[in-house]
Amino acid sequence: VGRVNYYAFTVNKLPVGVLGASGYAGRELCALVQAHPCMELAFATANEQRGTTVRVGGKAITFIAPEDAPLGQAALVFSALPHGASHEWVTRARDAGARVVDLSADLRPGNEHQGAPYGLTEINRADVTGAELVANPGCYPTAILLALAPLIEGELIAPGSAIIVDAASGVSGAGNAPKRELLFGEVAGDYRAYGIGNEHRHLREMRSSLAAWGADADIVFTPHLLPVARGILASITVTLREPLDDAMAPWRTRFADEPFIELVDGPPSIRDVVHRNVTSIHARMLTGTRQPMLLVLSAIDNLLKGAAGQAVQNANLMVGVPETLGLPA
Amino acid sequence: VGRVNYYAFTVNKLPVGVLGASGYAGRELCALVQAHPCMELAFATANEQRGTTVRVGGKAITFIAPEDAPLGQAALVFSALPHGASHEWVTRARDAGARVVDLSADLRPGNEHQGAPYGLTEINRADVTGAELVANPGCYPTAILLALAPLIEGELIAPGSAIIVDAASGVSGAGNAPKRELLFGEVAGDYRAYGIGNEHRHLREMRSSLAAWGADADIVFTPHLLPVARGILASITVTLREPLDDAMAPWRTRFADEPFIELVDGPPSIRDVVHRNVTSIHARMLTGTRQPMLLVLSAIDNLLKGAAGQAVQNANLMVGVPETLGLPA
Amino acid sequence: VGRVNYYAFTVNKLPVGVLGASGYAGRELCALVQAHPCMELAFATANEQRGTTVRVGGKAITFIAPEDAPLGQAALVFSALPHGASHEWVTRARDAGARVVDLSADLRPGNEHQGAPYGLTEINRADVTGAELVANPGCYPTAILLALAPLIEGELIAPGSAIIVDAASGVSGAGNAPKRELLFGEVAGDYRAYGIGNEHRHLREMRSSLAAWGADADIVFTPHLLPVARGILASITVTLREPLDDAMAPWRTRFADEPFIELVDGPPSIRDVVHRNVTSIHARMLTGTRQPMLLVLSAIDNLLKGAAGQAVQNANLMVGVPETLGLPA
Amino acid sequence: VGRVNYYAFTVNKLPVGVLGASGYAGRELCALVQAHPCMELAFATANEQRGTTVRVGGKAITFIAPEDAPLGQAALVFSALPHGASHEWVTRARDAGARVVDLSADLRPGNEHQGAPYGLTEINRADVTGAELVANPGCYPTAILLALAPLIEGELIAPGSAIIVDAASGVSGAGNAPKRELLFGEVAGDYRAYGIGNEHRHLREMRSSLAAWGADADIVFTPHLLPVARGILASITVTLREPLDDAMAPWRTRFADEPFIELVDGPPSIRDVVHRNVTSIHARMLTGTRQPMLLVLSAIDNLLKGAAGQAVQNANLMVGVPETLGLPA
Repeated sequence: VGRVNYYAFTVNKLPVGVLGASGYAGRELCALVQAHPCMELAFATANEQRGTTVRVGGKAITFIAPEDAPLGQAALVFSALPHGASHEWVTRARDAGARVVDLSADLRPGNEHQGAPYGLTEINRADVTGAELVANPGCYPTAILLALAPLIEGELIAPGSAIIVDAASGVSGAGNAPKRELLFGEVAGDYRAYGIGNEHRHLREMRSSLAAWGADADIVFTPHLLPVARGILASITVTLREPLDDAMAPWRTRFADEPFIELVDGPPSIRDVVHRNVTSIHARMLTGTRQPMLLVLSAIDNLLKGAAGQAVQNANLMVGVPETLGLPA
Repeated sequence: VGRVNYYAFTVNKLPVGVLGASGYAGRELCALVQAHPCMELAFATANEQRGTTVRVGGKAITFIAPEDAPLGQAALVFSALPHGASHEWVTRARDAGARVVDLSADLRPGNEHQGAPYGLTEINRADVTGAELVANPGCYPTAILLALAPLIEGELIAPGSAIIVDAASGVSGAGNAPKRELLFGEVAGDYRAYGIGNEHRHLREMRSSLAAWGADADIVFTPHLLPVARGILASITVTLREPLDDAMAPWRTRFADEPFIELVDGPPSIRDVVHRNVTSIHARMLTGTRQPMLLVLSAIDNLLKGAAGQAVQNANLMVGVPETLGLPA
Repeated sequence: VGRVNYYAFTVNKLPVGVLGASGYAGRELCALVQAHPCMELAFATANEQRGTTVRVGGKAITFIAPEDAPLGQAALVFSALPHGASHEWVTRARDAGARVVDLSADLRPGNEHQGAPYGLTEINRADVTGAELVANPGCYPTAILLALAPLIEGELIAPGSAIIVDAASGVSGAGNAPKRELLFGEVAGDYRAYGIGNEHRHLREMRSSLAAWGADADIVFTPHLLPVARGILASITVTLREPLDDAMAPWRTRFADEPFIELVDGPPSIRDVVHRNVTSIHARMLTGTRQPMLLVLSAIDNLLKGAAGQAVQNANLMVGVPETLGLPA
Repeated sequence: VGRVNYYAFTVNKLPVGVLGASGYAGRELCALVQAHPCMELAFATANEQRGTTVRVGGKAITFIAPEDAPLGQAALVFSALPHGASHEWVTRARDAGARVVDLSADLRPGNEHQGAPYGLTEINRADVTGAELVANPGCYPTAILLALAPLIEGELIAPGSAIIVDAASGVSGAGNAPKRELLFGEVAGDYRAYGIGNEHRHLREMRSSLAAWGADADIVFTPHLLPVARGILASITVTLREPLDDAMAPWRTRFADEPFIELVDGPPSIRDVVHRNVTSIHARMLTGTRQPMLLVLSAIDNLLKGAAGQAVQNANLMVGVPETLGLPA
């Protein structure tokens, strides 16, 4: 007892570029890349904040203008650019020879540009592995589709019924552009729905995925803004064909051995998932209804499993290193 | 311009007792009574905190032991005692000649003791007016039943369908007894569901009310704990018989001229209702579903419209002064 | 027991205008005016938000452009315009015949325009009473100067010593213009000093007041940004000529019967003063130092006693109604 | 570009025990040990919570009773037991052959038991290296003494003057035992001083250290409770012998190349240091005072650099692995 043999070692690291690095997801990407055993930050771009230096994880990063990005020096590029603006830069990075993970909506199901594998890793792992371009899912769709997948694949949902999704997100989901309604003085102590009436952009992404999976169910989506910095909780009510004796069985079976899926015995908590690249899921039958109804709760960190973390998880598979590398579980 | 005639005046005030005054609702009652133009605080009881002096609205109140309460000196008694313990003291206060508003669950629909008017004021105003004993509704049922009443009364909900209620409450709803899971260090930055699986006590109260109103619909209820001090938002999804051209029409018609119902053009916000005795409601049709579906959002301050405020609103009607007196709208 | 005589009455009310009504202090002024028994809102101006309608205390207010303000119709005008911009509008309102309370720094001690009574009400009540123009103090100076006045007036501070002021303010003190550093995602969970090195604008105001009072002491001021919406706490360390046997005696004597000064037995708390027009003060001798040293703690709501509340307190004295009217104590 | 050579490796790890693992510092210790490349958790004890299983960093830990702890199997023991209770267990662990870091106050300067090196790492590194027992500093003393050391060592402070320390801590500093005053409903939106009048336990620790360093200055300490989960900021005002041309020079010189001291250009922020084992320091001369005065600001994460992080930093030196190992900078 008490002797330690400690070996330091160095590997060659992948040079990685981050486009749109000044936003919340972009900064999280920079932090993950810097702490990743096989990656190093080659450049980080920001448009409005070009030239400014920030500390990320204790290291200084100076944002360069997008047009100055040495795309050809990066083996891997993450784009956290705004929806609409990302697609062009993804094309440029691909032309320069880099593998690309696009965190914008541009390449996701239900949006304009199609064809890239949809990086909902636990569902589409085979397509992501070795891919050169991946569309990283939205934060809400990640939490919700991972929760729904075992029900859809098992054909457990009552045909023609509606899946009711109420979800709540921390404010980092709205980005860090200065807006009055996102000031601390406005958000602290508040809670409200937004994008109601099935108007949220992420619904399109979820409907396209459900359709692709052959789901015969409608989906209703009401997001809310939480007075917390980060985290998403989705509360999903579904009508089943038949009651489940063991409400957790579909997830236990489908997600056995998944390193980033955490099945919990009670309601998952945002606090337990923030700063971690996991999806935490719990399901419970609802009592006292004529139809058999099930509640599924799904929690993620919107900036990690819902953005930068899943992006690195996908990138690991794309470049052929262990899927869990550099990711806090 | 510029001359002011200011008249001060004094009325005889009703002596009021508050049982269980040390909790959040009890303190709010003391504050409302002290600021009420027709009420004055005769006594305030607390069991564990007997003998301690607190400031409420700038005035010092010393809690007395319940058994020392001079019940006979009060014209009106509010009981904010715990569920189960309240009923006995309500009986004592009634025997001593006081009118009583019971804020506990003991006398509410679906609970053990029946017969007192249910003080959901806007719905049961006739029964409350002049009553000597009123059962004050729970916080969640207040927000939810006021939002549902126009739909039930208008027979707008699809028969046999399920009403899906996701709701979130600030921590004051859980009281101020010291529990580890309610510490600031545990709640800050967190969000989670609780009492899931249709297990929350308030569901019984809501189901009894819906049954009494003749509703042919199930109800599903998932409450969540918000990292805010006060406020409730209920997000209610219902399936309708037929689409509504004007989604707000049922509430506009039913609640015309109600001083404490506020119909708003967009999602109501907890921030806009805290410290006020109002229910703020918005409704919107949901797009892209086979059945016509409606979202109804309802926000209240759980300590005012959901507890002490509605209690004073009921008390005003019981003793015959204007319903709005002493209540912040 | 149990009979209530309730009399409603109406007085003629003073028409009041609010310039710069869209900021936090401006909205608080509108709310106070609307709830004041002797005032009614004649108009509220906002430059950028002209034409928008907001709810304040349950009533809708539509902001008009400053140049459309019917200044001549107001008996009283509050200016919550930005520093520098206020002075011109104060002159216009005075020319139109209105009494004016200027909440900007323009007329305060140490700033460009001099001569108006400084509305630190408890200190300058005689000058404020009946005045036609008053310079309303800054939020920090209100908390700090009220705490220091009894020490200065009593010549208790060691000559030539330095008064060390550390203070913390909620974010509403920084206004509601959208800035990245004030976003919820930046402020939540954070705490930092700002304006350090004796650079804060309010220091000039405090130094001028101390000089006018004949204080022979330096002052050092370090403000901090708190992750709360409202409230200020000042922690003031002074070196005394001699130890005080009764540390609270100077305030008890000086502020006897003051309705808005609250002397408390332990550290005052922001929570206990928000939404109230009070200054809460506590003092305690410090042990274990060679020189006799005293800690004075002073808490206010920066938007009430530190801005809109003190402005109404001053206005009450200016127009000759009771000083406490319409103010939450 | 684009080839990755990734090597996994295993070392023999030190078995580590954590006494008092259920508190905030204890849990942080467990998380650090589990993520440390040279340590593995042998056992974790908790008295009240014995038998309960918690997730720390995604791994389940079951707390055992202290009396069941296999002390002899641990090469290293961290004690996060309460003050007073820790000393006995430290002795037991030492008797069983383990190196021990005591996070309680029991062995710190100014407390009952003396003789163990005081683990303020950057100051006492030589004494800590290879030591078998270390007294880990308190959270406030860590932030404050590291900020003061260059001034004391350089004899820069005016002899006989008083060092004025105002500091603020997140609520985790008060532990996770359930107390009413630490409930979310009490702390949210609040800010207050506590332990005022130089009564805080940590002052004894700081005074003993200053005396041992030969400082000829008094110290005054006013702590405050912040509505954040974690983090400490100390705002220190000192009177100097002479003005400093370069206010940061003493720290730049003294702490050159320190991996866990971060000198910043502006006021340090709690947000920038939480979840990191660093002390962030800034200093600025104060203008407009007769004596030359300096403000020093120092920020730490109270649970990392102020407790568990510094404990691991010390342990690394005790067992002979790189000081920075397993610590988030």
